Amino acid sequence: MQYELFYWPTIQGRGEFIRLALEEAGAEYVDVARQPGGMDRLMAALEDASTPSFAPPFIRAGGLTVGQTATILLFLGDRLNLAPREEAEGLFSHQLQLTIADLVAEVHQTHHPVAVDLYYQDQLAEAKRCARAFCAKRIPKFFDYFEGILAQPKRGGFLAGGKLSYVDLSLFQVVEGLRYAFPRAMRRLEPAYPHIVALHDRVAARPNIAAYLASPRRISFNDDGIFRHYPELDSE
Amino acid sequence: MQYELFYWPTIQGRGEFIRLALEEAGAEYVDVARQPGGMDRLMAALEDASTPSFAPPFIRAGGLTVGQTATILLFLGDRLNLAPREEAEGLFSHQLQLTIADLVAEVHQTHHPVAVDLYYQDQLAEAKRCARAFCAKRIPKFFDYFEGILAQPKRGGFLAGGKLSYVDLSLFQVVEGLRYAFPRAMRRLEPAYPHIVALHDRVAARPNIAAYLASPRRISFNDDGIFRHYPELDSE
Repeated sequence: MQYELFYWPTIQGRGEFIRLALEEAGAEYVDVARQPGGMDRLMAALEDASTPSFAPPFIRAGGLTVGQTATILLFLGDRLNLAPREEAEGLFSHQLQLTIADLVAEVHQTHHPVAVDLYYQDQLAEAKRCARAFCAKRIPKFFDYFEGILAQPKRGGFLAGGKLSYVDLSLFQVVEGLRYAFPRAMRRLEPAYPHIVALHDRVAARPNIAAYLASPRRISFNDDGIFRHYPELDSE
Repeated sequence: MQYELFYWPTIQGRGEFIRLALEEAGAEYVDVARQPGGMDRLMAALEDASTPSFAPPFIRAGGLTVGQTATILLFLGDRLNLAPREEAEGLFSHQLQLTIADLVAEVHQTHHPVAVDLYYQDQLAEAKRCARAFCAKRIPKFFDYFEGILAQPKRGGFLAGGKLSYVDLSLFQVVEGLRYAFPRAMRRLEPAYPHIVALHDRVAARPNIAAYLASPRRISFNDDGIFRHYPELDSE
């Protein structure tokens, strides 16, 4: 099956969680908006679907159009063999993905605490307060949670189902993004989370992921995405 | 099957989306933390599960423990006949539920724009800016989206699958909550969204929902939940 991914062409953003799943699986896919004329196709598809999306990313495959990052991963997980087959662990992987979505929303809030429609510069004072609290309290709270799960002996170093699933790829991306956005905070925090760091490294070393990260298909982090490096937000 | 719902006992919060589904279906359930000794059971269950949750709500049934509001609804939807059976519409109902989750997170941000761990009074100035932008831009953006879907002729007045599903109950709850939190803004906005208002009224009139809303099981809105009425945040 060929997959069409519709997402903004110049950022990793929420689309990156989908790209990582497609790349790990070696799936045949087109990153539509990065093709010539692709942005027009994205904007048209956003409106046209009988199951329209509130915002990108969304994916089209086999006559279906599916939006919302975690729903797309639910859809792809079965098809790409990137989700546990067993019901309890399948639900758990999805539950963890939604917890990552909550974390990602809080990351976005660090640079846009007042309004998504305002420029960063117009909410800088609020952003500094928000980012300080995020690095001091929220990263540890989320990381304590994921570390605790990875430390369960039965997990075998993966979050759900005893083998790699889409949510492991997403936690890898969270670590990558937080290292870019908050390098000083992460240097201080990471030693307390050996299982998370080990999972990150194990994902980075997978052949398809390593090839993807080294390819031009991997867009660099930049300050238009979710994870932004504003040094003034990265507390010592 | 008997369901055990674990959620804070004194607020509607995110647990209310689950309560509405259980009530509509006439399911046999225990709202654990509202029973004598229930808070201790909630705190113990939060830590103990082999599939632990980051935060309430979570649900236990048939040996499974499932967390994250939208994952719980995915789990319950099939069992309670509150989700479309067909794959495309089943995914769509879940996609819409996650869009509601995004909206709910933004509602929470209006009174806690800087940090969830800080008191409202310590982020009041930021909250005023955030709520103003939310009422002016974000409610209309989300409501335009849901109104457009409900206006599709094939929808038959429901969001997905041509009949009532959990996501209709959730959109009802969003309207209820926004009316409580931002009554002035909602009075101004609602006339532009006749399909959403009609869906709200249709849900409110369902016998099981009407009985629930009139019962002591329905906790009143208050200023500890997600939807809070702070008059200074409700713009004229």
